[in-house]
This record gives sequence, structure tokens and C-alpha cells, in this order.
Amino acid sequence: MNDNNTELPSVQRTSREELRELVRSQLQALLEQNNLKGAKALLVPVQPPDIAEAIEGLPETMQAIAFRLLSKEEAIEVYEYLDSSIQYALIEEFKRQDVLDIVGKMSPDDRARLFDELPAKVVKRILEQLSPQERQTTSLLLGYPPDSAGRMMTPQYIAVKENMTVTQALDRIRKLAHVSEIIYYLYVTDASRHLRGTISLRDLVVSDPEQLLSEITRREPVFVSTETDRKEAARLIQRYDFLALPVVDSEQRLVGIITVDDVMDVVEAETTKDIYALGGVASGKENYFQTNIFTVARKRVVWLLILLITNTATSAVIRAREDILEQVVALAAFIPLLIDTGGNVGAQSSTVVIRGLNINAIGEGKVWRTIGRETAAGSLLGIMLSLIVTIWAYFLAGNLLVAISVGVSLLAITFLASFAGSALPFLFDRLGFEPTLMSAPFITTAVDVLGVLIYLTVAQQLLGGAE
Amino acid sequence: MNDNNTELPSVQRTSREELRELVRSQLQALLEQNNLKGAKALLVPVQPPDIAEAIEGLPETMQAIAFRLLSKEEAIEVYEYLDSSIQYALIEEFKRQDVLDIVGKMSPDDRARLFDELPAKVVKRILEQLSPQERQTTSLLLGYPPDSAGRMMTPQYIAVKENMTVTQALDRIRKLAHVSEIIYYLYVTDASRHLRGTISLRDLVVSDPEQLLSEITRREPVFVSTETDRKEAARLIQRYDFLALPVVDSEQRLVGIITVDDVMDVVEAETTKDIYALGGVASGKENYFQTNIFTVARKRVVWLLILLITNTATSAVIRAREDILEQVVALAAFIPLLIDTGGNVGAQSSTVVIRGLNINAIGEGKVWRTIGRETAAGSLLGIMLSLIVTIWAYFLAGNLLVAISVGVSLLAITFLASFAGSALPFLFDRLGFEPTLMSAPFITTAVDVLGVLIYLTVAQQLLGGAE
Repeated sequence: MNDNNTELPSVQRTSREELRELVRSQLQALLEQNNLKGAKALLVPVQPPDIAEAIEGLPETMQAIAFRLLSKEEAIEVYEYLDSSIQYALIEEFKRQDVLDIVGKMSPDDRARLFDELPAKVVKRILEQLSPQERQTTSLLLGYPPDSAGRMMTPQYIAVKENMTVTQALDRIRKLAHVSEIIYYLYVTDASRHLRGTISLRDLVVSDPEQLLSEITRREPVFVSTETDRKEAARLIQRYDFLALPVVDSEQRLVGIITVDDVMDVVEAETTKDIYALGGVASGKENYFQTNIFTVARKRVVWLLILLITNTATSAVIRAREDILEQVVALAAFIPLLIDTGGNVGAQSSTVVIRGLNINAIGEGKVWRTIGRETAAGSLLGIMLSLIVTIWAYFLAGNLLVAISVGVSLLAITFLASFAGSALPFLFDRLGFEPTLMSAPFITTAVDVLGVLIYLTVAQQLLGGAE
Repeated sequence: MNDNNTELPSVQRTSREELRELVRSQLQALLEQNNLKGAKALLVPVQPPDIAEAIEGLPETMQAIAFRLLSKEEAIEVYEYLDSSIQYALIEEFKRQDVLDIVGKMSPDDRARLFDELPAKVVKRILEQLSPQERQTTSLLLGYPPDSAGRMMTPQYIAVKENMTVTQALDRIRKLAHVSEIIYYLYVTDASRHLRGTISLRDLVVSDPEQLLSEITRREPVFVSTETDRKEAARLIQRYDFLALPVVDSEQRLVGIITVDDVMDVVEAETTKDIYALGGVASGKENYFQTNIFTVARKRVVWLLILLITNTATSAVIRAREDILEQVVALAAFIPLLIDTGGNVGAQSSTVVIRGLNINAIGEGKVWRTIGRETAAGSLLGIMLSLIVTIWAYFLAGNLLVAISVGVSLLAITFLASFAGSALPFLFDRLGFEPTLMSAPFITTAVDVLGVLIYLTVAQQLLGGAE
């Protein structure tokens, strides 16, 4: 934790975060003193993502000033790391030419992503000013469906022909390195741009300079089409440990590549979507702090309204059994326990199954085995808990029959919850619904309604004799 | 979806999965006919991860036979992709020398991971037979704490000295390419192996062959130490879009690198851990289908027992207010609704905050803003729902005072739940507890106990006059 003797952005566990905060506060202090030269010098050794973070932490009025301190080359890199809200604010601040220099030099996939989040009017204005070629690539990418491989690919790859020699290919890399997003794979295409195979720079470097590329090309490349879902593309890169994946159009012509760094961002975004769905939060691509709270509330209310409807059934069940509750009001004290436990056992099973489905970890033919295992584990839990709860309820309520009702229903509820929790996600998956989104409301309903019904029915049988 | 005219493992959305299944079933059919030559030919154009999956899908008796059909080189690659249970079964099946050839040629980080999951006896036996150098690297990796950067790094990188020329560096790459895990970065070290900087192969390729490396070295590299948590290493690779990250020891000497493909696996594993924790499931590194259900149940019971304890408080509150329930038994019908809604609003807020914390998306100084926003959104939800619920409850119960009690308490509960749901994760994070694990039980308790207390107290005020 001794950061005193280092002004470098070196990483030593949390000290990196401390350093970022240090850069931000020093930068702010220098700007407040109007010491632009000092501020400029401060930023020289700092990495672009860290500069972006420092700028994001500044008061709004200073962000544009700080950004202008950067060299043009650095500005382009830093700009890509900035949050889209700040990118937008900077666009508004700058004169046209500045913006064009920066936006024009962004990689096409990052530019498409930026445009996705800007107001249509601004996009139109910028598009008009781009060079015809830049405009064309960007519009092309914007034309693919959201969340498709086409939208996240970059057309900046290096294609070669089979009849080139290793030396010629290396020359080509040298020439194209500054415009290509990655140079570690070459894509071999035929005269009509059909993808024939791939060559890694590694293969190239270790080969005889005079060898023909046809001799070192790896045939049968793994690829995706522009329409493929970006999740599938991410899965392939992960599965095959690739640094990039080629993307072809409907006629199998190479049109772009997807790189591993973009995939990591996709995986993070998709996981957030899954986690939000599990937590009953609809996700949008908007930045959290920019969305107004009415939108936030509107997005969450749906799930809660569904719950309200399903609770009508639960209420109806309780009301239908009101006589037994009236007789033995102590029964009411255990309703929260039964509902909470059922909900949680259901959530435990569905969490495992949904995560398994989302990462393709449950093979065909393992569906029934999984449901069987989950239900068995749930029942086992039920037996343990039910014994404990019976004793616990007896101490609390002082009534053995109440305690037995609680214990017996808990056993039934955990069985039910683990079965519903594991089976419903598979069912929704088969039916083509999104299990992550659909499972929780249905599991909650099944467990609430049936759980309360079982509880009060058992209680009526055991305790209702007094009537 | 016309797979008929292609026998290549080409990817076209779901067709790849169909193809894998096809390979598996054909392979099984050929093995059943004892047609080993045909089976061997079938596998030639298939990619190693797909072969691994096909082998995993075979009956156990055939797995070893199928594996033996592979060329030695292919076998090594396929082996790394196999599930650890099958890796273990194969080790048991094989004669010593086969195993050693394969394990000896695995990359050290994959070998360490394999050993992590094998019984100690088997590991010892294999370690004894490795060459001294292989044994040393593997033991070294095994010596770092689990989930540390040291454990996931590979010592197979290429180091260079500053006074080499570009041509010399390229020669060195050529010589070391077959033993280095990646060749796309060179690490510049001084005489005592201290990390001085990095050079990408891209920089090298576009430079003048006679240039000295010192002229193109990027100083102040981002690095981690062997003790750094692997999550932090993954975050850095993602943040800086690196293909690899250097790892240094306590004296800042370069000891290994972490590559982006391993990071993607870490991210997936860590996310599964987070999702499991949110769903109340303790996760282990064991394979799901190999863990027996007693272990599964034991891992989940803790969370449920905590719930039981906290429910004692809820039960006590209800029992303390039994007189009002006895008077107006219709009140009981709405307890599930209040508990479910409180739980869900709390989960919505905590999901957003916990995910934000886990991906470092909530900057310093945004803590109170986040809690404020969540509480505001929750209160807004509360107002909407409370209006709807009051009307709904009036129709169901036919008693205006009951309906008002339900509505008023729901408002209080949503406010409380969104505040607790957003504030508690931050609190636990500050106190050094794992928010993903700790938040749910506490939020549930706060919401259940206070929710029921508010509900029955309000009802007593409004309805208790009859006493």
C-alpha cells in the first residue's frame, strides 16, 4: 500500500483504484487552478481507460476542458472508453471538425455502438459529415438487428489469398496493421470473397518465408453469420479459445470479424440481463443514472402486478379456509415461514437450472436427471427442515397439532417447490419462452397457492374436529 | 438449416449443435460396429472441443476407446477440453506412459487445474513421474492460494531484453512459439527479471528490423501480483482489452502471464458463483452431476435455517397481534401478498446494487445517489401499487378498513424494502462482507418483520376500535 514512491499507474491490488482517484483529484485541483500545462503533464503516463475514468469523475464543466488537453491520438482512444452520456455531452460541446476527427477515426463497431445511443438527429448530422466510405461501413453495421453478430463485428480484418507466400502475407500485415482491429489472424478468401480458412500470425511467424499460404491454411473455419445472436458468437469464442471469429453474409462471403475484447463486454451485458431478470428487473441498455426513476419504476411494476394477480388465488384459498383460521388463529403466524421457504427452495432449484441453461451446461438427455436430482435434493431438505420446524413451531405455538400441520405442509411445499423450480425453466425453454424471465412468477404462484392450500387443509383435518 | 451438403463443423446458428449430436451418434454407431477405422476417419475434420463433447456423450465403456483413436497431438488438445470427471476416468484406464505423455504436454496452468480436481493420491503418482522441470512448474502453480492470479497464470511467455533488435526478437519468437502459450506480447525484463515493459507482436511487425526494442517498448505496464484475486485480473484484462496480463512476484519479478481465454472461463465461473449466491445456493467447484444430493442439500440448508430463525421474529410479531387477527380474520388473507411484494421490491433494488458492485459500475460518491434513486423508485412503485391494492383488497375482502390497512402497509413496506435492498449491500461491502451472499437474508428479515408489524399495527389502529 505504499503508493508514495510511484507515480505510474502500476497495479498492485486495490492500489490501482486509489491511484485512479488520485489522478482524478489532482486533475481537478490543477484545472481549478487553471494550470493546464500541469494537468496535461499529469495525464501523459496514464492509460486511456484510466484517463476516461478520471474525466468521468470531474464536474461537468471541466470534462470538456480536460478532454481537450489530450493529444488527438489519445483523445480518440479515451473517447471510446467514455460513458455514452459523456460522449454525447462532449459532442455537443465541440465544434464540428473536432467531432468528425474523433468519430471518423473510431473503429466502425464502436462508432455503430455510439450511434445506437445518440439521438437520431445527432447521428444524422454526424453521418452526413463522414467520408462516404466511413458512412457506408457505419450504416451497414447499423442495418443489422440489435444483438446480432453483424452489429458487433468490425470490417477491419486482413484478408489474404491462398497463392501468396508467407513473406507477402507479412508485408501485407505490415501495410494494413494500422487500419486492422487485430492482426493475429489472417482470413483466406477466394476470388469472390468466400471464406476458405484462417492462418494465425503464429503459424506465419514460424513458417518458412517462401511457403505458400495454401500449405499452412487451416481449413473448415468456425464462423457465424451476420444474423447470428451475439450470445452464440460469444459462446463460440469462449469454447474455442479464439481471439476473433469471422462473420459471413448469407452467401458465405466474409464481411467482418468479432474480437474477443468485444465478446467480454457482451458476456458482461448478457449476464447483467440474466441477473436482472432473475431479480425481477427489466433491463434496458440505458445508463442507470440517466434513466429517470419513473422509467425505472415502470419497468419493475409489471412483475409486481403479476404477483398481485397471482396473490388473488392465494387470498382466495385463505379466505375459503377462514373458519379454521378463526378457530386457531395461531396458524396465521406460520404463513410467512411457509411462503418464504417455498419461495426460496424454488429459487434455489430454478437458479441452478436457469444458469445451466444459459451457459449450455445441461446436455440433452440430462433434463429428467436434473429435475430428478433437484426434486430429490429438495425433498431431502424438506425432511430435515420439516423435523426442525415441527419442534420449533411446537415451542412457539404450544400446540402439537398446529406444529404437525406446519411440519407436514413444509415437507409438501419443499417437494413441490423443488419440482416446480427445476421443471418449469425446462418447460419454458422447450416452449420457446425465456426461462430467466418467466420462471419466477410461475414458481411463486404454484408454491404460494398450493402451499397455503396444503397447509390450511392439513390444519383443518387435524384441528377442525372441534367444529 | 440444410446441413446435408456439408460435413464440416461449420457454424450456422443452432446447426452446430445438431452437428455435434450427429458426430456423437455416428461415432457411437461406428464403435458399436467395432469399425475403428471409420470412427477415426469421422473425427479427422472435427475440432478438438467438439471431439471432447462427442466423447463426453458416449457410454462410459466407449470413451477410452474413442480417445485412443486420436493422434497423440490431438489427444492432448482434446484432453484439456474434457470434463474433469472424464479426464480422471481416462487416467485410471490408461497405462502410465500414455498418461504421462499427455499430462506432461498439457500447459502448466491447465495441468494445475486438472490436479486441483484429482484425488491427492493420483496427483502424487503423476507428479512423481513428470520431468523435474514440469514437476517444478506445476507444484509452483499449485502453491498459490485458490482463485489467485498465481494459480491461473502460465509460465509460458516470451521474455526479451531491451538491447535486442526487432529481428532478434522475431527470431526468438520463432524459436519459442511452440512452447509459449501466446506469442502476441513480448515482455521486456532487466537482468534480474524485473518487468520493464511490453511489446506487442503488432508493434514488432510494423517496426524497422534494425530498431532496438528499447525504442518500441511500452513502459509502465499494467500487471498483477501472484496473490491478486483472479476476479481483479479478469477485470483488468477486460478493462484494457488485453490479450494477456503479466504476473509478478512479491519482488516485482515477472513469473507468468494470464491469457484472455482463461479469463473468460473465470468470468463465467465467478458469475455462476454470484448468481448462485443471489439464489441462495452455495456453490462448489464440483461438477453438478457428480455431487451427491446429500451434499447438495447440505449446501442449501444453511440459508433456509437462517430463514427459519428470522421467521421466529415474524411469527412473534403475528402472535403479539393475535387479538386483531382473531377479530378480523380476513387480515390473514393479505399476509402473503405483503410478504411477497416486500421481498420482490427488496430483491429488485438489491439485484441492481449487487450487480453494480460486482462489476465495479458504481463509482465512489455515487453510493448515496444510488440509495436515493432506489428508494425513490421503490416509493413510486409503492404509491402505484398501494392504490391498486387498496381497491383490489376492498373487492376481495369487502371491508374498507381492511383494504386501507393493506394499502397503507404496502406503501410503507415498499419504501422500506427498496431502502434496505439498496443500502444493505453497500453496508456489507463497506464492512468487508460479501454483499452477494449476505444481503438476501437480512433484507428478507427486515421486510418480513417490519412489514407484518406495520400491517397489523395499522389494522389494530383502524379496526381495533371494536374491542
